[in-house]
Amino acid sequence: MRKLRMGMIGGGIGSFIGDVHRKASGLDGMIELVCGAFSSTAEKSKASGKELLLPEERCYANYEDMILKEKELPEDSRMDFVSIVTPNHMHFAPAKFALENGFHVVCDKPMTLTVEEAKILENLVTSTGLLFALTHNYPGSPMVKQAKAMVENGDLGKIRKVQVHYLQGWMATSVEDSGNKQASWRVDPSKSGVGGALGDIGTHAHNLVEYITGLQVTEIAADLGKFGKGRILDDDGNILLRLENDAKGTMSFSQIAVGEENNFTIRVYGEKGSLEWHQENPNELTTRWIDRPKMVYTPNGHELYPLSLAASRIPAGHPEGYLEAFANVYKNFATHLNASLTDKKIETPDYPTVSDGIKGVQFIHAAVESDRQNAAWVSLK
Amino acid sequence: MRKLRMGMIGGGIGSFIGDVHRKASGLDGMIELVCGAFSSTAEKSKASGKELLLPEERCYANYEDMILKEKELPEDSRMDFVSIVTPNHMHFAPAKFALENGFHVVCDKPMTLTVEEAKILENLVTSTGLLFALTHNYPGSPMVKQAKAMVENGDLGKIRKVQVHYLQGWMATSVEDSGNKQASWRVDPSKSGVGGALGDIGTHAHNLVEYITGLQVTEIAADLGKFGKGRILDDDGNILLRLENDAKGTMSFSQIAVGEENNFTIRVYGEKGSLEWHQENPNELTTRWIDRPKMVYTPNGHELYPLSLAASRIPAGHPEGYLEAFANVYKNFATHLNASLTDKKIETPDYPTVSDGIKGVQFIHAAVESDRQNAAWVSLK
Amino acid sequence: MRKLRMGMIGGGIGSFIGDVHRKASGLDGMIELVCGAFSSTAEKSKASGKELLLPEERCYANYEDMILKEKELPEDSRMDFVSIVTPNHMHFAPAKFALENGFHVVCDKPMTLTVEEAKILENLVTSTGLLFALTHNYPGSPMVKQAKAMVENGDLGKIRKVQVHYLQGWMATSVEDSGNKQASWRVDPSKSGVGGALGDIGTHAHNLVEYITGLQVTEIAADLGKFGKGRILDDDGNILLRLENDAKGTMSFSQIAVGEENNFTIRVYGEKGSLEWHQENPNELTTRWIDRPKMVYTPNGHELYPLSLAASRIPAGHPEGYLEAFANVYKNFATHLNASLTDKKIETPDYPTVSDGIKGVQFIHAAVESDRQNAAWVSLK
Amino acid sequence: MRKLRMGMIGGGIGSFIGDVHRKASGLDGMIELVCGAFSSTAEKSKASGKELLLPEERCYANYEDMILKEKELPEDSRMDFVSIVTPNHMHFAPAKFALENGFHVVCDKPMTLTVEEAKILENLVTSTGLLFALTHNYPGSPMVKQAKAMVENGDLGKIRKVQVHYLQGWMATSVEDSGNKQASWRVDPSKSGVGGALGDIGTHAHNLVEYITGLQVTEIAADLGKFGKGRILDDDGNILLRLENDAKGTMSFSQIAVGEENNFTIRVYGEKGSLEWHQENPNELTTRWIDRPKMVYTPNGHELYPLSLAASRIPAGHPEGYLEAFANVYKNFATHLNASLTDKKIETPDYPTVSDGIKGVQFIHAAVESDRQNAAWVSLK
Repeated sequence: MRKLRMGMIGGGIGSFIGDVHRKASGLDGMIELVCGAFSSTAEKSKASGKELLLPEERCYANYEDMILKEKELPEDSRMDFVSIVTPNHMHFAPAKFALENGFHVVCDKPMTLTVEEAKILENLVTSTGLLFALTHNYPGSPMVKQAKAMVENGDLGKIRKVQVHYLQGWMATSVEDSGNKQASWRVDPSKSGVGGALGDIGTHAHNLVEYITGLQVTEIAADLGKFGKGRILDDDGNILLRLENDAKGTMSFSQIAVGEENNFTIRVYGEKGSLEWHQENPNELTTRWIDRPKMVYTPNGHELYPLSLAASRIPAGHPEGYLEAFANVYKNFATHLNASLTDKKIETPDYPTVSDGIKGVQFIHAAVESDRQNAAWVSLK
Repeated sequence: MRKLRMGMIGGGIGSFIGDVHRKASGLDGMIELVCGAFSSTAEKSKASGKELLLPEERCYANYEDMILKEKELPEDSRMDFVSIVTPNHMHFAPAKFALENGFHVVCDKPMTLTVEEAKILENLVTSTGLLFALTHNYPGSPMVKQAKAMVENGDLGKIRKVQVHYLQGWMATSVEDSGNKQASWRVDPSKSGVGGALGDIGTHAHNLVEYITGLQVTEIAADLGKFGKGRILDDDGNILLRLENDAKGTMSFSQIAVGEENNFTIRVYGEKGSLEWHQENPNELTTRWIDRPKMVYTPNGHELYPLSLAASRIPAGHPEGYLEAFANVYKNFATHLNASLTDKKIETPDYPTVSDGIKGVQFIHAAVESDRQNAAWVSLK
Repeated sequence: MRKLRMGMIGGGIGSFIGDVHRKASGLDGMIELVCGAFSSTAEKSKASGKELLLPEERCYANYEDMILKEKELPEDSRMDFVSIVTPNHMHFAPAKFALENGFHVVCDKPMTLTVEEAKILENLVTSTGLLFALTHNYPGSPMVKQAKAMVENGDLGKIRKVQVHYLQGWMATSVEDSGNKQASWRVDPSKSGVGGALGDIGTHAHNLVEYITGLQVTEIAADLGKFGKGRILDDDGNILLRLENDAKGTMSFSQIAVGEENNFTIRVYGEKGSLEWHQENPNELTTRWIDRPKMVYTPNGHELYPLSLAASRIPAGHPEGYLEAFANVYKNFATHLNASLTDKKIETPDYPTVSDGIKGVQFIHAAVESDRQNAAWVSLK
Repeated sequence: MRKLRMGMIGGGIGSFIGDVHRKASGLDGMIELVCGAFSSTAEKSKASGKELLLPEERCYANYEDMILKEKELPEDSRMDFVSIVTPNHMHFAPAKFALENGFHVVCDKPMTLTVEEAKILENLVTSTGLLFALTHNYPGSPMVKQAKAMVENGDLGKIRKVQVHYLQGWMATSVEDSGNKQASWRVDPSKSGVGGALGDIGTHAHNLVEYITGLQVTEIAADLGKFGKGRILDDDGNILLRLENDAKGTMSFSQIAVGEENNFTIRVYGEKGSLEWHQENPNELTTRWIDRPKMVYTPNGHELYPLSLAASRIPAGHPEGYLEAFANVYKNFATHLNASLTDKKIETPDYPTVSDGIKGVQFIHAAVESDRQNAAWVSLK
């Protein structure tokens, strides 16, 4: 095993998610940032690289440059993979170019703006054999992994009902008009795609439902809201869900839910038991049972499945949070990549891949379509 | 002011809700139980009355008997009002008969099986001038009243989003087949009406949304579930809500949500603030704000509106629960009735009335209709 | 079984605790208030009685009158027992007089001002065979009873450690100087006795520790605080506890803990498991285990002991609170009294008695003595 | 600013706290691990270094070697500071040697076994002008910093009462006898010093009280427990606290509190307001007020002081935990060291220093002395 070399696309100094990716990828000592095309201009990119203590020659003006030049470096120093942390409209092109030039890819979500783009990436991944990780970070949480394992092992029985909501309030007013960069690209269809909050956080909710239950969402009826003045894209949504095996549910997401910070909550009900998880206090998994008192699981605590235990770094009672969950995506990707570099086989790697990316983009488009039809049912297939 | 005399219809010994009505009506010393037609047979009714320490001659064989005989008693001893605590299909006839014979009515929800019946009762209430209370008990909670007052006073700004769920798990298995009386009438359309969980708890959710927000639910798209083996009526439901003033929301209710006891939760989001209330810990009202930290209100605590203060009996920190909230419906009804008996005028009384009853029945039928149409939007008007 | 007749001493209209006793004693339909000596003057007593809808002739000028005159009434109408709800200094004399005249007694805590008085009452109870209930209400809570039963059944193993605190903030400022009647007698040694917060709430904490653990507190080291300006009696205290069987612990109580409403919390640690209960959300009992996840018990929920089940009136998830717990003391007392009136034997009745009263008074005096000696250990025996 | 170079003493692979120090020091990209003397033998040390991807020549056999050889390296590659993560008895010697040889020091707590040793280090720090950080990590939490700032700014008024407990259960059984290395040195006085749980976690509690309140603990009365079979050192303790300005309080700590994971909780009561913080859900600071509802602060949320804002890395609602708090100690130390290397002045750095180390060791010895005298008061001065 060796330390993997990462090149970053996007994520200049000041970027929220770029910094998250850097801290998360570095946490376990398995990955180091070696180069980047951090910004829209060569100057800004270099300035960012300097603050990150990178050598100037590896701070590139754009992703094409980076990919082509890194490709020419000796094998033992060139980057192993790119991490794409740009706004949505800038995921597809660099991901495609990286794959075409032999680099593995870590890419933020939603993967692409269109389903067509998403399928092109999937084909490239298949044809090249390169690895592709999509950074849905919430499945990285130890208690989410315990939830998945409990469902998978049948502890809850057949799943009947799912409730998920992802509520934020930071866009309750027109923050995009007062210089909030995080907001301004999110409300712009040319950068965000057809979905607003839908793509930004609705996709996390969709992904989490499928990750934990192991069931596909098969059709949805979506009623989207555009509450912010002059907004073209949704900033709120309420969705009826139907899943495989006759399960039903609701999803609600919002970026105008005043006062909510990052309230991402899921409840799953089976025939024998149920579970509940709150992202804002991620170190508890509450379970309820047909014949026993409520039980609350904790990371590295009692009666956990291996999938969950593998995701904790420190003893029970020492809280891990958002960054650590995010780091688990990188950690599992890095473990897979290291194995693949040395031809070792490992178990099905536990991180979101290009196929999760396709499903996310399909979900966005289905929700928009359903909303256009006044919340008629639209199939996700 | 004098102690009001109550005659009970239904609620024989062993009944859950009959006992609740007795304890709730008696809590504040304003009402005493003086007679009853507790059960389907004269014998059972007398047995119940005996346990309740009532004189034998005022334990009647059926509601007609009770109403006709009490009517003949001297004014200073005959019952003032009936309290109807029977299963759903036995609400309409006794309510109608009581009104026709000059008795005020307290009635459990849902008020009737059909909208037509509901309107007949409304007409009778109007024409007789008698009082009619519907026992939606949750609006009786001090923190629900604070929530209503905050919205009414504009503290939250214009309401944009509502989320409500009412989740129980006690019917997750086929308890109706193993002698659970509470379950057996609820799954029987001839007793429960067209709605199962919908009528039983969905109506509470609908009522609470309208009570707190002051907004009418205008249209709904409902996807009902029948998870229990052989069930004809819904035991689960997911509903998209549209309200007056362009607010939107979701409702979910269930009696098959394994492990949930009585998880009735509401969240309301306005332009400036939001609030959250959980029935299972009813003595907290959590509020979130656009520019301040989260604030948690408590009964008899700081910065409460009079509507809320009036609903607490004991100092802050001494929890009141389900029975006390229920008792507030009776207390406000009794205050109104006492005022009406002495021709005093009082402010608009704060308890659910016959018009809330109509809305509840409309909601049930609209949801069933929407579900029949595969969750198409159905208007509630 | 018949309805028991209660005469109240103290508790005129406007009294906090008098109203609590009335609501609590009436909740289960086993007790009715038939007479009272509610206030310090005959007029006020009558006024209170009128509001309570009592006949004028049974509203007495003072407790001696009430006891002597009720004694002369026919057996089937005179009161069965007195309920003493006056400030501390007015407990002993009426309790003694009632017992001497053949009436059973319910008495608020602390039972008396001195240990000598307490022992006189104990002797009277023994010699007369009359019943005596002390209204420590918190042991009435279903989850406290579950806690006691779990310890008793050895579920937690040998008890090692106890933490209890009872924190209020309502006396953080000098409220006694601005007409707060609840405060003014509590800060007055002639009415409150040698303990302030100590007697008012410290005794509840002491009682709860012994009720749940089944262990006697054997010695204490107390550091009392007098934070309010000019206060003679403690308004805060911190105590080291030693209990039977080598258990240790801490107690903290306060009426100057700003912002706390009625935060009464206990944690008990055994060799195999531990438990935690919060009065402000009394419907959860959290348990932690050496080899299992945290489990949370709820009233009328799964895996409860009979002692707990008997204390719930309504289904799981329907919160009961302070009044219902208080009512359980009256209910168990009434059940015992009814049995005793008909010579039935019942199991050891589960309500606090005169011997708990003695222990409480001993605890107060020991704590004051320890504090005088700069927190030296003082034995409670 | 440049990346600082760290040499680690102790913390071989498998060590809990060594891994924590590595992740925490690396999180913000300001520090890199360049060398180490990780274990008791040269071989083990090299093996650990290899796993950490360090060059073999910088994996030293012992701390003397490391310090002497690093000293000879060119200034631009030798380590800047040592991080000492060994058991307690191995803090003093390497810290002293590092300071004597011109290296800055980060050291785990408790700083030394004796007060004399502690003062020697303090003198060395003073005489050399080198920096010294003690890794009490809990003050690194954003909500603890908010708590400190609120007290400092007088928001709570004069402090009257403090309650702190630090409860763990992992040593409830004799885990030291079954090969648990974390336990075995902790129960051994030659390695742990005179305090067991006292030194391990009691010192954290003591430090947090002083950090938040800004008040010195002036005297304590300690009742220590040795519940585990054959234990020589305390595994539990209950302590009465007296602080400057007439504040009082309690401390309780335990490693035999079955089922508790890392329950470190503090409550501070002033004349105007109070606050409460729980380490296990560190992203909430609950405050209570004399005239307002309870308010709950969150990292990067509303109305925070700069001291708190500076300690958060990600937006509100994205939980940070133990590692991030720990990383804040390193971050502030690194900022200070970088400034000191370039002769910049910065504000009083916000991390625990050698003087906190002395106080911690004094606290341990005072508690042991008090316990020997049957919980007599012992001064901390």
